[in-house]
Amino acid sequence: MLDASQFVDFACSLADAARAETLVYFRTNTHVTNKLATVLKQRSDRTSKDVLKQRSDRTSKNTLKQRSDRANKDQNFDPVTAADRAAEQVIRNLIQAQFPDHGIRGEEFDDHPACSEYTWVIDPIDGTRAFISGLPVWGILIGLLCKDTPLIGVMDQPLTGERFVGGPHGAFLQHHGQQTPMRVRTCPELKLATLCTTDPYLFVGPEAQAFAHLRQQTRLQRYGLDCYGYSALALGGIDLVVESGLQDYDICALIPVVKAAGGQITSWSGKDASKGGQVIASGDARVHAQVLEILTPFAKD
Amino acid sequence: MLDASQFVDFACSLADAARAETLVYFRTNTHVTNKLATVLKQRSDRTSKDVLKQRSDRTSKNTLKQRSDRANKDQNFDPVTAADRAAEQVIRNLIQAQFPDHGIRGEEFDDHPACSEYTWVIDPIDGTRAFISGLPVWGILIGLLCKDTPLIGVMDQPLTGERFVGGPHGAFLQHHGQQTPMRVRTCPELKLATLCTTDPYLFVGPEAQAFAHLRQQTRLQRYGLDCYGYSALALGGIDLVVESGLQDYDICALIPVVKAAGGQITSWSGKDASKGGQVIASGDARVHAQVLEILTPFAKD
Repeated sequence: MLDASQFVDFACSLADAARAETLVYFRTNTHVTNKLATVLKQRSDRTSKDVLKQRSDRTSKNTLKQRSDRANKDQNFDPVTAADRAAEQVIRNLIQAQFPDHGIRGEEFDDHPACSEYTWVIDPIDGTRAFISGLPVWGILIGLLCKDTPLIGVMDQPLTGERFVGGPHGAFLQHHGQQTPMRVRTCPELKLATLCTTDPYLFVGPEAQAFAHLRQQTRLQRYGLDCYGYSALALGGIDLVVESGLQDYDICALIPVVKAAGGQITSWSGKDASKGGQVIASGDARVHAQVLEILTPFAKD
Repeated sequence: MLDASQFVDFACSLADAARAETLVYFRTNTHVTNKLATVLKQRSDRTSKDVLKQRSDRTSKNTLKQRSDRANKDQNFDPVTAADRAAEQVIRNLIQAQFPDHGIRGEEFDDHPACSEYTWVIDPIDGTRAFISGLPVWGILIGLLCKDTPLIGVMDQPLTGERFVGGPHGAFLQHHGQQTPMRVRTCPELKLATLCTTDPYLFVGPEAQAFAHLRQQTRLQRYGLDCYGYSALALGGIDLVVESGLQDYDICALIPVVKAAGGQITSWSGKDASKGGQVIASGDARVHAQVLEILTPFAKD
């Protein structure tokens, strides 16, 4: 069996393959479809890798154009792109060829159950909204769970060429052929913190009040970063990420990155964050404690 | 006298020089100071290029650390970095050497009056908050006015290596040695639009109500992009940028980029945007008309 650093190398080879797939579609502007509208169809006809392969083959520009036209008429806009599916498929194929007994869980296709203690958790494009807007703050997320615990994680940003990596051997940024260790920065108290969240208007009800209260106590706020926010936290540029409504594939790859850089990442009640839901990541444990005090009353776990 | 395309080449050489200056400081995390706290000091002792050169020489890591410590105690946080000053200085030096009769207006230092019809308007780091957070959505802005009208503009993003250029010869993206024409996308109506603004909480009073009303009528929102939002609009990834409280150096360089890509850019009342203040940029004139209808009652010009 490989050790963690060999799994990191393999995860990086997966990111290489996915990077190429995503860049083909980035800024082409013809590939927006609507996830909500296609969920039922996907559920009804997804059965095997062959079917998925066929579907991928069918995804011609004309089909995508039609989907885009449909999506343009839809108010419940949750975009997903052909790039998502293409990138996840290439990652799945490589994992299944190399480690057929490993499980695979991804955003776009059905779970592949594990016959070992390892499961890969992937989100081919985390930050689809940034992706379809032509912005550089999305990423490819590849995580590996060992017995349900995140072991290694990779966040790859194809446009900038940055790759944020975390695992038992530490956290580092690969960029332009250089490998730089990553370390969170200190931040003694919340009022000095830079906070980020994907969208402040995504919170509703009591969560929205809790987030507004938290936001007003921080010094600087950044929005719309998805996985790039956690990566910037690991780099020491941001102190705090607070989210709600995450899926496990939105967060599993980022947990080893944040932890190996010296940060904390938990649910709003201070528990394991790897299932998604409400998540707090911080660079400094003092800020984490302050945020838990504010948010734990609103925790759902 | 040079023609517009020769001025574009010169502006690109300015961006090359500024790119190097900014990257030295990017993600170093030791250089945050507080603009509000230093404005009075700068005003009292800025007299000549020599003095500014001396100040730049004094900007040692120790001094910056002290400034950072002071800034950490300040609630009115408006960050500015040593990179801002270094990049603007190198741009000013190059312009003064090549075109001593051109005016220079920049964010960091006093105006250099023009003895010709040309004035350069520069913001060495537009999006300082993104810069100090280690994010890739800031840029170097270099614009050239001819008789007070924006003639050419360059937005350079040093980390991604992207350079967005606009002028009489068109709009294009330079990236990895390639030059790609830029064109806004069509968007027939506001409810299909992707809107961006720097921070939705920056609007106050009636402006905040107007923006909230506008936001709720759009399909997707992106925040915290500063100049990168206008550039993404020129690329066809975003449909609408709405801002308030801009300075002229925040917008002058972006006007030729947006217009040459086929977009509109005006004040909230539909007038000239080159003085800053309240700005609307859009890719599709139909969306622009809809937004003017909503925002003109709140226009200050």
